[in-house]
Amino acid sequence: MTKADVVVGVDVGGTKIAVGAVTRAGEILRSERYPMDRSTQHTSLASIQAALDGFMAEWSAPAPLALGFGVVGRTDPAAGVWVRAMNIPISAPVDMTARFGARYGLRAAVDNDVHAATLAELYWGAGRNADDFVYLNVGTGTAAGLVTNGRLVRGAGNHAGEFGHSFTGIAPDVACPCGRRGCLEPVASGGGLIERARELLPAYPRSPLAAADAAAQLNAHTIFVHADAGDPLAVRLANDMVSALGIALANLVNLLDPQTIVVGGGVWADGWLLPRVWHIVQTTALAGALSDLQGMVPSSLNPDHVGLLGAATLAWDLVNERQ
Amino acid sequence: MTKADVVVGVDVGGTKIAVGAVTRAGEILRSERYPMDRSTQHTSLASIQAALDGFMAEWSAPAPLALGFGVVGRTDPAAGVWVRAMNIPISAPVDMTARFGARYGLRAAVDNDVHAATLAELYWGAGRNADDFVYLNVGTGTAAGLVTNGRLVRGAGNHAGEFGHSFTGIAPDVACPCGRRGCLEPVASGGGLIERARELLPAYPRSPLAAADAAAQLNAHTIFVHADAGDPLAVRLANDMVSALGIALANLVNLLDPQTIVVGGGVWADGWLLPRVWHIVQTTALAGALSDLQGMVPSSLNPDHVGLLGAATLAWDLVNERQ
Repeated sequence: MTKADVVVGVDVGGTKIAVGAVTRAGEILRSERYPMDRSTQHTSLASIQAALDGFMAEWSAPAPLALGFGVVGRTDPAAGVWVRAMNIPISAPVDMTARFGARYGLRAAVDNDVHAATLAELYWGAGRNADDFVYLNVGTGTAAGLVTNGRLVRGAGNHAGEFGHSFTGIAPDVACPCGRRGCLEPVASGGGLIERARELLPAYPRSPLAAADAAAQLNAHTIFVHADAGDPLAVRLANDMVSALGIALANLVNLLDPQTIVVGGGVWADGWLLPRVWHIVQTTALAGALSDLQGMVPSSLNPDHVGLLGAATLAWDLVNERQ
Repeated sequence: MTKADVVVGVDVGGTKIAVGAVTRAGEILRSERYPMDRSTQHTSLASIQAALDGFMAEWSAPAPLALGFGVVGRTDPAAGVWVRAMNIPISAPVDMTARFGARYGLRAAVDNDVHAATLAELYWGAGRNADDFVYLNVGTGTAAGLVTNGRLVRGAGNHAGEFGHSFTGIAPDVACPCGRRGCLEPVASGGGLIERARELLPAYPRSPLAAADAAAQLNAHTIFVHADAGDPLAVRLANDMVSALGIALANLVNLLDPQTIVVGGGVWADGWLLPRVWHIVQTTALAGALSDLQGMVPSSLNPDHVGLLGAATLAWDLVNERQ
């Protein structure tokens, strides 16, 4: 194969679809964004088809070797099936090769966005020199991609990585949408933080977070800024988030002995969170594992492209028969 | 190679050394136990040498293909080095091939006892049909062996598996010998249970556990029996153990999505603990991971032989260049 070999990655989001041609080295030769209409399963799949058709009509040569789809929800990568999703309403399983690949004579791979992003870090990002690393995604939700022995951990049924539902003992009574209490995600994710702030605001009538919410400015960054300024509600929310992430991550470091922790997702962007969580890991994980852990670092990939690159890794794994 | 090919496994314990010839199928053709004098590093290594020499003098044919050593403490399997240990006083690193293999013209592999036992479960035990499983060892201490994608997780520096130092929020003030508080091991291991019972006894002057301790009968089994009889101290100890193990294990199930949990070690022997911990896992882990988890089962290997079999797997991995 030549350097110019490409696959086509499709990053399927709730509001837009990114499609791109990606080389074996992770270079994006061309990428485009297309609209997503997620009203129903039918419109969602039609949007994906339109995005792919639009891209392929513009793309000339070389012919792609495979298609890769990064999606939300439950997938069966071995079978190439998008099983179901909530945020995008997929209730009947979709065979991605039959539905999207056959039209172009191409096989199609699929996995969830966190697994895909973890593979992008493994092949082309901050994990590319590590056989054992953790990709910790904290954005609207919280999840982790685990790499051991140089391979993504998918688990027995592709459910691996549900780090957001670790119980840490911090805020043990906080309800999680999963139905349990004490999960990491509701106290340590962008979405959870906002919901929890709104629930607690009545008990903190003088908190400036009420005005922030009214101005549609209530987010992790705002809460960190007000925590630094001493607002008791913001301090409580931020401290619980740091403690819960630190505890869960130290447990994970002790278990997996990773070489690096790579962080991705919106809440890390302003730089407030990372050193505080890292401090807890450094002061509570075991000495042996810490001696192997080189650091906790932001993703080196462009956040606008990581989803697309992740989708492309799935296609490359199919080409390379690594799946 | 023929069916009769063997390696020699050496299970190095604090009081005795088991040596055996093990086939590729995990059949022990012959095994012997020898004494261990762990007064110093010198006497410890001399004991191992004497055990190996004793076994090899009795063993006729076929010539073993390699040696495997299961030890306590820190090891570097890639280099074949026993780095250090406390329970057996190893302070200067030992090159196992140079020290023990060269005499017989054989290469030697080494790893810790939990990693070795996990490989025994993977190749010949309850994990042999699973690409993803957890081997949970709870005896004097608490540790886990993790298998993902069909391979043992050693981590970046062979420190993986320190499940006993997970923080669970149960008994968060209990001190751990590692220097921290709230670890799983001091509330959820055979040794930790005894120590904690002794610390709490002054506050429970009517507990029958004092008499059990005086009669040298204080152990996990005794505590479970008295918990069933309603002794408040025993109830507290047993409940904390069940809760802490259940929480940490549910977190692990959510993270790794294993097909099976295999339990080994003394505290499971009377059957009291397993259904109680399993109940917590079944009621608190996520539905997706639970749908893939077939069960939590005792090891199918003879507990007297699992250490020896584990040591042999290390030698077979060397022969098969799987390490």
